[in-house]
Amino acid sequence: MAKHNNGAGRGTLYVVGTGPGALEHMTAAAIRALDDSEIIVGYKAYLDLIPGCLEGKKIVASQMMKEVDRCIKSLELADEGRKVALVSGGDPGIYAMAGLVFEIARENDFDCDIEVIPGIAAVNGCAALLGAPLMHDFAVISLSDLLTPWEVIEKRLQAAAGADFVLAIYNPKSKRRTEQIVRAREILLDHRDPGTPVGIVTAATRENESIVLTTLKNMLDFEIGMQSTVIVGNSQTYAWNGKMITPRGYIGKYDLGTSKNQEFCSSARRG
Amino acid sequence: MAKHNNGAGRGTLYVVGTGPGALEHMTAAAIRALDDSEIIVGYKAYLDLIPGCLEGKKIVASQMMKEVDRCIKSLELADEGRKVALVSGGDPGIYAMAGLVFEIARENDFDCDIEVIPGIAAVNGCAALLGAPLMHDFAVISLSDLLTPWEVIEKRLQAAAGADFVLAIYNPKSKRRTEQIVRAREILLDHRDPGTPVGIVTAATRENESIVLTTLKNMLDFEIGMQSTVIVGNSQTYAWNGKMITPRGYIGKYDLGTSKNQEFCSSARRG
Repeated sequence: MAKHNNGAGRGTLYVVGTGPGALEHMTAAAIRALDDSEIIVGYKAYLDLIPGCLEGKKIVASQMMKEVDRCIKSLELADEGRKVALVSGGDPGIYAMAGLVFEIARENDFDCDIEVIPGIAAVNGCAALLGAPLMHDFAVISLSDLLTPWEVIEKRLQAAAGADFVLAIYNPKSKRRTEQIVRAREILLDHRDPGTPVGIVTAATRENESIVLTTLKNMLDFEIGMQSTVIVGNSQTYAWNGKMITPRGYIGKYDLGTSKNQEFCSSARRG
Repeated sequence: MAKHNNGAGRGTLYVVGTGPGALEHMTAAAIRALDDSEIIVGYKAYLDLIPGCLEGKKIVASQMMKEVDRCIKSLELADEGRKVALVSGGDPGIYAMAGLVFEIARENDFDCDIEVIPGIAAVNGCAALLGAPLMHDFAVISLSDLLTPWEVIEKRLQAAAGADFVLAIYNPKSKRRTEQIVRAREILLDHRDPGTPVGIVTAATRENESIVLTTLKNMLDFEIGMQSTVIVGNSQTYAWNGKMITPRGYIGKYDLGTSKNQEFCSSARRG
């Protein structure tokens, strides 16, 4: 199966993250990778967001084509020696296309360079819109039980809730999956105050963006859907001025007044 | 203290993420926010990475000035009605400047708009360099006990290790803190195979970038420092072709061969 290279040199597959929605959250590296590619493969709804990047390219778009098919198609083209970009929403490295590409390349012994271009993930984009909920240790959990047994998901919810992680919940609810978020909230309420701030961001940075700041008690009164990410605070998280803020210290060690003699260590040197 | 506005209109503070290092991982939104600001405040080492964004701006840079001071200075300027950008490495929303800005604004009753511009965090950038380790539920934990009691950190390590989260470890080690990563590995070994893949990325996308793919057994044989992020796989993670890959399904439900009749649900629609 491998090395179908038609004499065009070794092919490259860029797996490109286009961010949460608005074009301005793409990186220059992502734009360069699209620019460097002969062929761009992607889900039509994502490609429609980046028309300026598609000019002069061969486009393999589809409304209906499944993720696995798109990965296979991209790898087949790169295996032939082409330069290909496979477009992924958000960050291809977080619950998105990067893993599937490597799994399929390995399974089928495809031979090409694979480069993942990171993007602003839903978790980064939603946190920014809510304020600063992820200033301390957090866990990211998908409630989709299509490929993961519900017992595994529930065990993780229990563990994260009990150890006071901020929780970012992907795939909280779909038309068919409506009970998982109800159960997740129950588990959280076993460990956390009903007044704990909860942020629900839907369609971050897109035209239909919605941002809700509520509490664990009231979160189910608001619409949560396929495009929503839910962020649940830890025991220290508070709401202020419409924002959700997790302080970074647990022990009140530092003085935030404007006197200029703070002693503070650079424990958060990187993002 | 509030509303020092000198008649210049309501001020704005952009908290801007510049990504893991290389300029090309900044977003257009970040560049726009810098462009829109009269004053740019930041740690000199970060500002030196973005010289093109500083032209014509008033720069408040410092080698030595502490984080809290930079936040206060930025908020004071915005409170006076200025447009200010406070530069943060990575994503300001992940263990970085965004939270401190809100904490200080609240404490001192500063009055200005605060907008967080997300960036590629270390966790996104390092995952992309390693392959696709974050395809499934993951926990992000900082081992710095400067502002968090070690018992809290250890409890989270236990919880995340026991519930089979992929683990991304920030601040794994410094000159003074050398034992935390040793203890973290011990905790992980209580729950996970010694052969579990571990990625150590240092100075991601910078000139001195280093990428190591090793195992839980051997990870301490490699250099881990202030600029390192460590990613530990879950029970399903494997190494292939120098990459670290966490499969996204637990139950082998889907067929990754090139036959075109896959049945697959879009559980990973976003990144």
